[in-house]
Amino acid sequence: MTVNNTAYADLMAFQRETEALGQVAGRLGWDQETMMPRGAAEQRSEEMSAMEGVLHTRRTDPRIADWLAQAEAVDAVAAANLRHITRSYQRATKVPGALAQALARVTSRAQGIWAEARARDDVAAFLPTLAEVIRLRREEAQCLAQGGDLYDALIDDYEPGATAETLGRMFDAMRPRLVALRSAVLGASHQPAKLEGHFGQEAQMRMARDLASAFAYDWERGRLDLAVHPFSSGSGDDARITTRVVESDPFNCFYSTIHEVGHACYELGIDPDYRLTPLGAGVSMGVHESQSRIYENQLGRGRAFTGWMFDQMKGRFDGFGIPDADAFYGAVNRVQSGFIRTEADEVHYNLHVMLRFDLERALIRGDLAVGDLEAAWNDRFAADFGVTVDRPSQGMLQDVHWSVGLFGYFPTYTLGNVYAGCLNVALRKAVPDVDDHLARGDARPATAWLRENLQRHGGLYKPREVVALACGFEPSEGPLLDYLEAKFKAIYRL
Amino acid sequence: MTVNNTAYADLMAFQRETEALGQVAGRLGWDQETMMPRGAAEQRSEEMSAMEGVLHTRRTDPRIADWLAQAEAVDAVAAANLRHITRSYQRATKVPGALAQALARVTSRAQGIWAEARARDDVAAFLPTLAEVIRLRREEAQCLAQGGDLYDALIDDYEPGATAETLGRMFDAMRPRLVALRSAVLGASHQPAKLEGHFGQEAQMRMARDLASAFAYDWERGRLDLAVHPFSSGSGDDARITTRVVESDPFNCFYSTIHEVGHACYELGIDPDYRLTPLGAGVSMGVHESQSRIYENQLGRGRAFTGWMFDQMKGRFDGFGIPDADAFYGAVNRVQSGFIRTEADEVHYNLHVMLRFDLERALIRGDLAVGDLEAAWNDRFAADFGVTVDRPSQGMLQDVHWSVGLFGYFPTYTLGNVYAGCLNVALRKAVPDVDDHLARGDARPATAWLRENLQRHGGLYKPREVVALACGFEPSEGPLLDYLEAKFKAIYRL
Repeated sequence: MTVNNTAYADLMAFQRETEALGQVAGRLGWDQETMMPRGAAEQRSEEMSAMEGVLHTRRTDPRIADWLAQAEAVDAVAAANLRHITRSYQRATKVPGALAQALARVTSRAQGIWAEARARDDVAAFLPTLAEVIRLRREEAQCLAQGGDLYDALIDDYEPGATAETLGRMFDAMRPRLVALRSAVLGASHQPAKLEGHFGQEAQMRMARDLASAFAYDWERGRLDLAVHPFSSGSGDDARITTRVVESDPFNCFYSTIHEVGHACYELGIDPDYRLTPLGAGVSMGVHESQSRIYENQLGRGRAFTGWMFDQMKGRFDGFGIPDADAFYGAVNRVQSGFIRTEADEVHYNLHVMLRFDLERALIRGDLAVGDLEAAWNDRFAADFGVTVDRPSQGMLQDVHWSVGLFGYFPTYTLGNVYAGCLNVALRKAVPDVDDHLARGDARPATAWLRENLQRHGGLYKPREVVALACGFEPSEGPLLDYLEAKFKAIYRL
Repeated sequence: MTVNNTAYADLMAFQRETEALGQVAGRLGWDQETMMPRGAAEQRSEEMSAMEGVLHTRRTDPRIADWLAQAEAVDAVAAANLRHITRSYQRATKVPGALAQALARVTSRAQGIWAEARARDDVAAFLPTLAEVIRLRREEAQCLAQGGDLYDALIDDYEPGATAETLGRMFDAMRPRLVALRSAVLGASHQPAKLEGHFGQEAQMRMARDLASAFAYDWERGRLDLAVHPFSSGSGDDARITTRVVESDPFNCFYSTIHEVGHACYELGIDPDYRLTPLGAGVSMGVHESQSRIYENQLGRGRAFTGWMFDQMKGRFDGFGIPDADAFYGAVNRVQSGFIRTEADEVHYNLHVMLRFDLERALIRGDLAVGDLEAAWNDRFAADFGVTVDRPSQGMLQDVHWSVGLFGYFPTYTLGNVYAGCLNVALRKAVPDVDDHLARGDARPATAWLRENLQRHGGLYKPREVVALACGFEPSEGPLLDYLEAKFKAIYRL
């Protein structure tokens, strides 16, 4: 540094402790989903709430404003740090404490009410709570938007810089091609075989570990455990993943694992100099999802890698009704009509997201009443998926997101897929023999390219910026759609 | 409450969050020893240090003094809470921040230096650091003692109310009887058989789980994992235990488990109304150790319970060279000359503690120079144990305690044994058929009596007070010595 910049140094020292405490809170969440004894739940919620209190106090500490006013950025790293801290401080201070507390209280209760409503297929039991969550999130969005679009203000939490308008335009371009592809594939005369059999938990977990290793997951700085819903957690030198086991369907475990490895490799691939700073974590949900998706789909579900997987499975599991590697590739990529987003294949997945995007945008903007949500969901589902939702747990009650106030989060899933489509083109251009390696069960060259060109930057660039930098072109939905059409038309012999 | 006592309510609300954050820090320590990936160590130390910073700030918060000045105790629970908070606040504020930080820094570094010195049997490499730790702890003791005895001030951290004088008088009464018993037992013509064989890790862990269940460990509020050094961790509804496995010596795993179950049952047995308050944890190290020791020794190593264990082991492990339950009881309780405290049997254990007590008291009082410590240790060891220490890793370098500044902690181990001896007498008087249950592998009646008479009180009474209340008599060393002499003279046919 060329100037006497103690304000920046003081700010960063303070921020470093906050980041460390954020990691502690994250680890507590990991523990809750993997290790915590069941009877500890009530006490744990007090522990979490005390940690959140500590973090909130630090994030709104008035000294931050003073430091920000005096700090000077002497290089790009410092500029990015100040940008992130400013953003986070403004986010935290724009929302009154009472509103933040009300949101925390209501969403924490709402999750339980939603789970019960889903179990009983009882929409009416959930609607008043959902209405309250939306009311509070709208109120919060008003504080954040300061006159701008309410839904944009919420998206900005997960995908800085993205707007409903640009996302909506992109989704509108994607939807007809995906609906057409879906329809063609499901109507094709050739249908791939289905995996059949029983796949024991221990053998699945051993295979999951080998898959993680194939994708260069760093076991010295991570671990794999079981959880009800797979997730990844932690930044810096401690990025853990979880998976689940369904004994009739090993792909659930295997692709959940590869997906979470993608998230974790992103965190572990960030420049170590950024550890415990605002640059030391994935830059946005969309970019994060691009990493999990390219590992899972473009790499993990490709013909090359599934060929290796087929050989591995032959040695580990008894006959599972698939004659050869080509049929196995088909089985992995089998397209099936279904109601549930988290179980959807590559063709259906983005249609699920777009449905939620349009509905939640309308809810937040006040264009759709909560009471009309179920009908709107079911109409849209019939139009895009060609099937009628038979019960709300298969429809508007299927996802936890809205109950915990996650509005503006869904579109980042598809944005991640779009980014993955772009990165896949650039990766294959830069590493032309990537499939030769994948065919031997070695995704390390792919991981190395992603690390070098995207992952290592952490929060240094803005989300869209870092994807464009890695790709060498402006990201758009084209590459993803081209990839999906080529892949599934080949598999379905269309 | 009959008075308008908002100061007390405010203080307790603040304290509750501090207790919750203390639990979080404890869980982070558990994670570090059981789950953390190796490469996360450096980052973890920053996370821990940030948590310690938060806790220190809260423990020295000046509002505590105001609240304490205004708060009124309307009942015994409130009085005990105020006593604990006053004590903790005074402890935290008497020691200047700079000294506390220096101690944290030096002891954190010293632990590594000690480990390396022990590995290389290099006393000289450890002495300068040990001298520095002692210098800082003496300085701290001067702040705490305010004119009183320095060593007493340190003991008070672990065993409020205990003093070197009363402990020393008790130990002096014990030492000759233990030295004589040791000598008689080792010289006896009958020597019990030794367990021989290989005991696989999985089978040991299954047995460990069954042992924990036999002692009524609540799996809904705890869990068992592997760690290098067994420990228990957490209070309230989340009290976890760890054990270790040595495949040639299953007793290591089994009795470590029962020992830690004792600690955890104490925490889990505390009145749930005290959760996340100063009363919601074990009241002192000595009382804590009384629970782990009575579970491990008076109950777990008794003839009744080992009879059940023998039957269990026959069904689980291949022949291990023990013909019958009586011989098994002898094998469990085999007395062996040895250098290492943590591997010592019931006869030798307290002699180890007394040696450390006398030496550390002399170090803190300034009566023994660090340079003379090795010779003093070796002389004392030869006198009490009849063998010559062959290398420092078997002598003064064996324990981690002094490197991390734990002076005044050792005596609580023997105090715990003494309390366990007293509680054993009272328990057997109150539950005369306890051995009939233990012989069927059921320690629940014993656990139930301990919970009702001691564990549930948590921090309500003072340490010695709660033991006396449970026993119905003033605790002394007599019952422990009587028990040891009777038990080992019978086993060794003296």
